[in-house]
Amino acid sequence: METSTGKPYVVGMDIGGTNTVMGIVDQQGNILATDAVKTGQYEQVEEYVEAVCAKLIPLIEEHGGAENFRGMGIGAPNANYYRGTIEQAPNLPWKGIVPLAEMFRQKIGIPVAMTNDANAAALGEMTYGAARGMKDFIMITLGTGVGSGIVINGQMVYGHDGFAGELGHVCVDRSPEARQCGCGRRGCLETYCSATGVARTAREVMGEELTSKEVYDAAVKGDELALEIFRRTGETLGRAIVDFIAFSSPEAIILFGGLTKAGDYLMRPLREAVDAYVMSIYKGKARILLSELKDADVAVLGASALGWEAG
Amino acid sequence: METSTGKPYVVGMDIGGTNTVMGIVDQQGNILATDAVKTGQYEQVEEYVEAVCAKLIPLIEEHGGAENFRGMGIGAPNANYYRGTIEQAPNLPWKGIVPLAEMFRQKIGIPVAMTNDANAAALGEMTYGAARGMKDFIMITLGTGVGSGIVINGQMVYGHDGFAGELGHVCVDRSPEARQCGCGRRGCLETYCSATGVARTAREVMGEELTSKEVYDAAVKGDELALEIFRRTGETLGRAIVDFIAFSSPEAIILFGGLTKAGDYLMRPLREAVDAYVMSIYKGKARILLSELKDADVAVLGASALGWEAG
Repeated sequence: METSTGKPYVVGMDIGGTNTVMGIVDQQGNILATDAVKTGQYEQVEEYVEAVCAKLIPLIEEHGGAENFRGMGIGAPNANYYRGTIEQAPNLPWKGIVPLAEMFRQKIGIPVAMTNDANAAALGEMTYGAARGMKDFIMITLGTGVGSGIVINGQMVYGHDGFAGELGHVCVDRSPEARQCGCGRRGCLETYCSATGVARTAREVMGEELTSKEVYDAAVKGDELALEIFRRTGETLGRAIVDFIAFSSPEAIILFGGLTKAGDYLMRPLREAVDAYVMSIYKGKARILLSELKDADVAVLGASALGWEAG
Repeated sequence: METSTGKPYVVGMDIGGTNTVMGIVDQQGNILATDAVKTGQYEQVEEYVEAVCAKLIPLIEEHGGAENFRGMGIGAPNANYYRGTIEQAPNLPWKGIVPLAEMFRQKIGIPVAMTNDANAAALGEMTYGAARGMKDFIMITLGTGVGSGIVINGQMVYGHDGFAGELGHVCVDRSPEARQCGCGRRGCLETYCSATGVARTAREVMGEELTSKEVYDAAVKGDELALEIFRRTGETLGRAIVDFIAFSSPEAIILFGGLTKAGDYLMRPLREAVDAYVMSIYKGKARILLSELKDADVAVLGASALGWEAG
């Protein structure tokens, strides 16, 4: 976090399919003010930018105006860090390639940087959370889907095209019966180790339509099949993590997202699988940690961490 | 390659289980002189260092002495970049943790850096070969085993412990029947896509004990089973590469080693598998290239590339 210019604030903004949340954040990671708009209400991206600015610019003025702001960071699905664009995002109303960073920069007059939501979460964890002081870690977000943000040598890994780090789409089952993924391919980690993946496993194991929350509630009551569902989920994720460790040998794997609420039902089989399957030179090295950031804050804090870099 | 000190030479040295080859290399990547010792003859590492220096120091003197040398780079199995040690190398005579970089530094009086052989090959490719000018690529060495060197943001990926980049040991078959690997685990890429992996596939497909060279010779004659062996090998490697692309989205994957002599028998099914299985956002982006360095030179050149950094 470079604060030598003395500008005390950044804007952090998270664009989700339903809501866009924006916040004013200081150097200690305090969220001083927030507001939100409904992303899906704006078919035209120009109207969306107007609606965000109508709420955001007054917040900026309350905090001394643009000259007090180092930059603005945006976390969004399918965001390209290098180009400042959102490209072909299936869950957002705007099609094609949208130059959102430049649109906000022109309206607000501060530097704007953008990355995908999982990368933003990793930056937030590195700046304010469990990864403070770490130079090599992998953040895995376990929500409706599985996302990831990879940090190597203290730097976010964007890849040559800005789209690196799609670990939810590594293949964990190469057989022809592997699960169909929303990305059009089969056997992706996301089809097993997301909230929807747990629901699919529940259908296979219990023959019932249950949400991951319902599977969790059954596990709390000691239901053996529910426990088995989390065992399988944890083992599949643990074996995938073993391959991630062989790639970048990180100091830690940090997990975040709704599925982590399963706690030890998921984490114990996951840690057991990592211990059982990891290559001997890596044994006992990478820590498996849970995020230290509050769910409600991580999206805005993560995006805000990018705001310090934008300036 | 930092040459601002004006020192015109480096030493590059490759330590293999059979031979140790050392060379004097200039800034253009010309190998000006080489010599070698038999690694396996020296049970005591002190004797080994003496034997290397008895040949190397005269070469250094012929090129103006230590003051003309920026540094020495060593490529060796199980080498730890951060510590300058070789740790528990199964194919070398010296057990435990050997502080080889410091031993050579004391004898020769120039800075010494060390990394594993696949990382050295990647550095050589970046400095003198197919990866010149690239900031994001993955080198995969296909020999008796499968090694890898990963470059991200223009930097070698060493991981938090110096052992990152063991892509030969990602799991490509999680079934209980997966092949046993020398590392003690099952289903590693190396058990399918190395020279020994091809021989194992030949045993399965042909029911015969053949070397990968013999399988190649049969393929040249149009033998359908031999072609099928390379098809399977290429597809397995291609599907693994698809996962590597999802990790770091590299500009290129560069292949090196004996197995690449199979040429299109291997490369065509490999490229077809990458095209068929890669995630759509990455489609057509990562180039699959062969090394541009001569086999005989790559080990010394790769290690020498590290020598420029050592100083």
